[in-house]
Amino acid sequence: MSAPLGVAVLGTAFMGKAHSAAWRNVGAMFPDAPATAMRVLCGSDPERTAASARILGWQEAATDWREVVTRDDVQIVDICTPGHLHAEMATAALAAGKHVLVEKPLATSLAEAERMAAAAQRAAGASMLGFNYRRVPALALARQLVHEGRIGRVRTVRAAYLQDWLVDPEAPMTWRLRAETAGNGALGDLGSHVVDQILAITGQHVTGARGALRTFQQQRPGPDGPEQVTVDDAAWAQLELDGGTVASLEVSRVATGSKNALTIEVHGSDGALSFDLERLNELVVTEGRAGWPARVLVTEPTHPDLEAWWPPGHVLGWDSTFVMQAAALLRSIAAGQAPEPSFADGLAVQRVLDAIERSDAAQGAMMPLGDAR
Amino acid sequence: MSAPLGVAVLGTAFMGKAHSAAWRNVGAMFPDAPATAMRVLCGSDPERTAASARILGWQEAATDWREVVTRDDVQIVDICTPGHLHAEMATAALAAGKHVLVEKPLATSLAEAERMAAAAQRAAGASMLGFNYRRVPALALARQLVHEGRIGRVRTVRAAYLQDWLVDPEAPMTWRLRAETAGNGALGDLGSHVVDQILAITGQHVTGARGALRTFQQQRPGPDGPEQVTVDDAAWAQLELDGGTVASLEVSRVATGSKNALTIEVHGSDGALSFDLERLNELVVTEGRAGWPARVLVTEPTHPDLEAWWPPGHVLGWDSTFVMQAAALLRSIAAGQAPEPSFADGLAVQRVLDAIERSDAAQGAMMPLGDAR
Amino acid sequence: MSAPLGVAVLGTAFMGKAHSAAWRNVGAMFPDAPATAMRVLCGSDPERTAASARILGWQEAATDWREVVTRDDVQIVDICTPGHLHAEMATAALAAGKHVLVEKPLATSLAEAERMAAAAQRAAGASMLGFNYRRVPALALARQLVHEGRIGRVRTVRAAYLQDWLVDPEAPMTWRLRAETAGNGALGDLGSHVVDQILAITGQHVTGARGALRTFQQQRPGPDGPEQVTVDDAAWAQLELDGGTVASLEVSRVATGSKNALTIEVHGSDGALSFDLERLNELVVTEGRAGWPARVLVTEPTHPDLEAWWPPGHVLGWDSTFVMQAAALLRSIAAGQAPEPSFADGLAVQRVLDAIERSDAAQGAMMPLGDAR
Amino acid sequence: MSAPLGVAVLGTAFMGKAHSAAWRNVGAMFPDAPATAMRVLCGSDPERTAASARILGWQEAATDWREVVTRDDVQIVDICTPGHLHAEMATAALAAGKHVLVEKPLATSLAEAERMAAAAQRAAGASMLGFNYRRVPALALARQLVHEGRIGRVRTVRAAYLQDWLVDPEAPMTWRLRAETAGNGALGDLGSHVVDQILAITGQHVTGARGALRTFQQQRPGPDGPEQVTVDDAAWAQLELDGGTVASLEVSRVATGSKNALTIEVHGSDGALSFDLERLNELVVTEGRAGWPARVLVTEPTHPDLEAWWPPGHVLGWDSTFVMQAAALLRSIAAGQAPEPSFADGLAVQRVLDAIERSDAAQGAMMPLGDAR
Repeated sequence: MSAPLGVAVLGTAFMGKAHSAAWRNVGAMFPDAPATAMRVLCGSDPERTAASARILGWQEAATDWREVVTRDDVQIVDICTPGHLHAEMATAALAAGKHVLVEKPLATSLAEAERMAAAAQRAAGASMLGFNYRRVPALALARQLVHEGRIGRVRTVRAAYLQDWLVDPEAPMTWRLRAETAGNGALGDLGSHVVDQILAITGQHVTGARGALRTFQQQRPGPDGPEQVTVDDAAWAQLELDGGTVASLEVSRVATGSKNALTIEVHGSDGALSFDLERLNELVVTEGRAGWPARVLVTEPTHPDLEAWWPPGHVLGWDSTFVMQAAALLRSIAAGQAPEPSFADGLAVQRVLDAIERSDAAQGAMMPLGDAR
Repeated sequence: MSAPLGVAVLGTAFMGKAHSAAWRNVGAMFPDAPATAMRVLCGSDPERTAASARILGWQEAATDWREVVTRDDVQIVDICTPGHLHAEMATAALAAGKHVLVEKPLATSLAEAERMAAAAQRAAGASMLGFNYRRVPALALARQLVHEGRIGRVRTVRAAYLQDWLVDPEAPMTWRLRAETAGNGALGDLGSHVVDQILAITGQHVTGARGALRTFQQQRPGPDGPEQVTVDDAAWAQLELDGGTVASLEVSRVATGSKNALTIEVHGSDGALSFDLERLNELVVTEGRAGWPARVLVTEPTHPDLEAWWPPGHVLGWDSTFVMQAAALLRSIAAGQAPEPSFADGLAVQRVLDAIERSDAAQGAMMPLGDAR
Repeated sequence: MSAPLGVAVLGTAFMGKAHSAAWRNVGAMFPDAPATAMRVLCGSDPERTAASARILGWQEAATDWREVVTRDDVQIVDICTPGHLHAEMATAALAAGKHVLVEKPLATSLAEAERMAAAAQRAAGASMLGFNYRRVPALALARQLVHEGRIGRVRTVRAAYLQDWLVDPEAPMTWRLRAETAGNGALGDLGSHVVDQILAITGQHVTGARGALRTFQQQRPGPDGPEQVTVDDAAWAQLELDGGTVASLEVSRVATGSKNALTIEVHGSDGALSFDLERLNELVVTEGRAGWPARVLVTEPTHPDLEAWWPPGHVLGWDSTFVMQAAALLRSIAAGQAPEPSFADGLAVQRVLDAIERSDAAQGAMMPLGDAR
Repeated sequence: MSAPLGVAVLGTAFMGKAHSAAWRNVGAMFPDAPATAMRVLCGSDPERTAASARILGWQEAATDWREVVTRDDVQIVDICTPGHLHAEMATAALAAGKHVLVEKPLATSLAEAERMAAAAQRAAGASMLGFNYRRVPALALARQLVHEGRIGRVRTVRAAYLQDWLVDPEAPMTWRLRAETAGNGALGDLGSHVVDQILAITGQHVTGARGALRTFQQQRPGPDGPEQVTVDDAAWAQLELDGGTVASLEVSRVATGSKNALTIEVHGSDGALSFDLERLNELVVTEGRAGWPARVLVTEPTHPDLEAWWPPGHVLGWDSTFVMQAAALLRSIAAGQAPEPSFADGLAVQRVLDAIERSDAAQGAMMPLGDAR
């Protein structure tokens, strides 16, 4: 048995906590994957980082990420910091020969994303982007069924990601609502997941995109009075794919009553699929032209990534996707294969989001994406 | 008690049968509305029309519609013929001083629709367009809740109308799939209902539209070999409304597994609504920003048009909407008020559909609709 | 073409209205069935009956049921009066050589029910009991699937019929809540439908029954102060069937939030079915031991009784079941066959209900039903 | 900060794995609870236990449970072995002054359960029974709403726990299907959870029980030919509670298409609740007599045990209930309070199950439970 792979997580907020849970559990749920050791949690505040490290199961805490990414006892660097820090940290870690996992979005600008994808291609270490919804077993099953041809040629995808946390006009201003810190709003945060799923499930590439963005609540209370919101509350887009599929998507942070409703409907020439993240363990499958929608509880050992999980009918939570993501990275490292999704996959998504923004600026006209792969 | 209003139905196919059922039942379900007499059913084939008239409960059968629309014992002319005949028949009936009900679509061209709306405005008789889904009690309740402000300002509407009857590539060519006879495809047939609902529920007017059409199956078998399909199988659009709402819609005749799925989600600043025609008796209502989606079974006597129907929990069928539609026309006639929806409402819908087609031809660019009301 | 069969309906209340709708529409929806004429509506109040007759489409009104059931121009007597009148009216009509349809329950005592079943057996005319839910296409499909062996041997049925109209303790006293007028409460009113479905779907006979009744609200306001409720608000039972199936059922009039929720789950050795009357057009079908529950929209022309109805996806209402029931009676008359369900079927149900009441009195002990067929 | 509490888990199978996950994660999800250290995993097979201990995160492995339960560095003994070992292990651990968590069922006989409850009462250490579904946030919310009177007086509970793993007649014989090793079948395994929920949600005590058991598949293949199944495949019961509630329950291991469907419907005088374990994150709440069923996604920080979990809409898995269970035990220890559910709660459940079995033997007659608390 070889030595365990040392892991460092950069970032101690929501995603740092979720990724820590993944590293804490991956060995127990996927004992066949390479073993890991939770070496170090890195954050900006020394005291809070130390407390988090202890609670979350890390051997050490640190505050200097540059030092962390070059440590000899660290083989995997898992980046959970805000998006504008991803590029610098990831390229440094790759340059130091580490395997790198970057929480989505890949970067906050297309230029950065392109540099990161190029760096990943050159690097010796594995690189992976944290689109964790690829690991939702029901979505992985959807992808598998499409790729096996079980629903025929995919004609349309109808997708949405609806949340409600900005419904209240008095919800305060944050960095997420400023273009300079967040890039964009619902489009980037929610739309990136949707676009990645469309690409993953269809296995196609986007050839053209059009769309629109809207900010319903233009001002929100800041500490010193009303401030201007400079990102979108909601966005709509239509994508044309090179396999003939047309996909539509809608994302919103002002969708009253929807908490975390990533919904995807796939209509093929010989069947259909539908999914709702609020019912993470279910995939509705229609097989054949005259079939009826069947509710599959995706908890069987034959379903993707579930061979070693709980017995059938024992449902999984959102956090399990991070455990599966960690396992996928470890298995790729062991196999010497490039993990999925790659930085290039993240770049493809970002190109689509960029085209949607350009289309919005051009009154909705179609933007071709000849090189969107 | 005054003499009953004599009714004539033009057309003996699917819609003629559905409207006949309405006239057969409206007196029993809405005894407060003016009484009617089922005078004459008019069709092109003498024998078949005679048989249908007998079965469907008509006193007489006829084949000459021009004669029928001027009969003294006919006060209401109900037009259920194919769309390209609507304009001539409706204007003739209005000119003869009759009340007129026209099955949707109003007409097959914008010019015709404008002439019909103008004729309706001039006429002494009442004129009504048969958007029967306005009478679905759950949709009428949705409209009422929005107009009462129960969900606040409407920010977004997400709608679709998905059917599957063209999924099979071997489904044969018909007049519905040729531009010259049908005008357009899913957009007109299904999209007209969706746009009318968006207008009715929000109470707003469309100021701009963009969209796209797609024909997935370009050829279908005709009697003498493959023929070219010249209408859309599916369409997408985004509408901007003058009250600040953004609406998106998707329609399809190739949506495997969806039989008659007109779905509408309305997100307001203080609540949300959602509806699915396959569950015609239900409206999902979220009240307040922190509310949860409640499934309302719309069969209570306090719900729209249900004061005289069956007891709570005894669900209604699709055909009941035609009974309610007939009652609405009769009540408007009795009250001397213009019935709803009017030909002008139908014209507004047609202008939106026309803008969507023009946007499709212009690569999706926004088409302004300054006068869409 | 032979002369139409003359129909008389006895009773002008809720069921009289529902059955009138059936006779008004059966010819249009089932043109292959024998034609009928709506001869006479019979009620106790001359004025109200005359008004109802006019509104509901009857040629005449009458108040003397004994005269009506012997009229030469009446071939079918449809009895919609309160249960305690059924026996006398039905036997008189059968004695007069008429075909008879009796709204459920067959009678209010087992002795009466036995006499009626015997009279039906002797009579020349057809006799049918109005368990209209047998005509719900989804339930008819359930029965068909079971009888075809599509879900294997039926092991268990889990059924309930839950309503909420007595939830309010201030809901007033009525004849339905007195044992002397109503016989029993939820057990007879709701349980009779449930037991009939269990028998129809399984095709088996009950060999033993146990159960319990409960009156949660013992007193309710009457015109002169509180009165004693002498029937059950809710009941539970377990049935053993001769094919090895065990069925459980629960009925309630105090089930808050349930309007008309007749739910039936059937678990077989090779599949399962489930149904909810509030979603009348749907049957959930699980085929095979490893199958998943598929939601079938029971509106296809291949589904029971739907060959001549609306196109797929156009849902049916509760009232359509009465149209189908009338058609079934007419077709049986035309074919010279005994209609289903028969008075004997109603008697079988009543024997089961009686055994449940006896079991309740005996602290829940099993009551054998050797002759329950 | 005091020293962490040392934990030992006895048992390495399914439940040992689930409980290990709880101890691995409780500190991260509930940092306010006392800290723990995963001292030792104890199993019968030295090699397999060592491997499991390493994978699951334990410091040590052991095979002698008697030695483990007296170790000085162990303060909490968590018993996950088969039921017939619970009594001896738990009483030994309690005698050694440890806190004890016992996976359900408490014991395999009523006598043993009584001895364990008595031992727990005398012991200095805390004792808790692992009815983990008490920790399902939606069920905890159900209980809270009932106890706050939000749905008024509970009139009826309708519950079921349906699984399908014995549907196949060729499913092999196991110790779970023999009375001598398993006590009983579906009744004990599934019914215990259901009865515990009925007691917890209503807060009442059972005064009488009746029921029936059934073995549909009497023989199953063993290594040397067909063997006799001596436990029930399915069971039904009706309970009377001292607060006036009537509860019905049905459990089955042959319910085709149901994987893990613990469903509970609670009908009160002023509202209703319903739950399905296959949709673990949802509770359907009807408030008021005229309310409608609202689907609450139980992932809000204000919901039970969720203040420190993931953001709203990020659903939890089945395994999270064990984390919450561990936290509840730790918080009780810290507060010096008796944890819930206690051994006495487990004894109360077992008395009800015993009465159901006695009723089955007595043809379903009601068995009084005067002392069932």
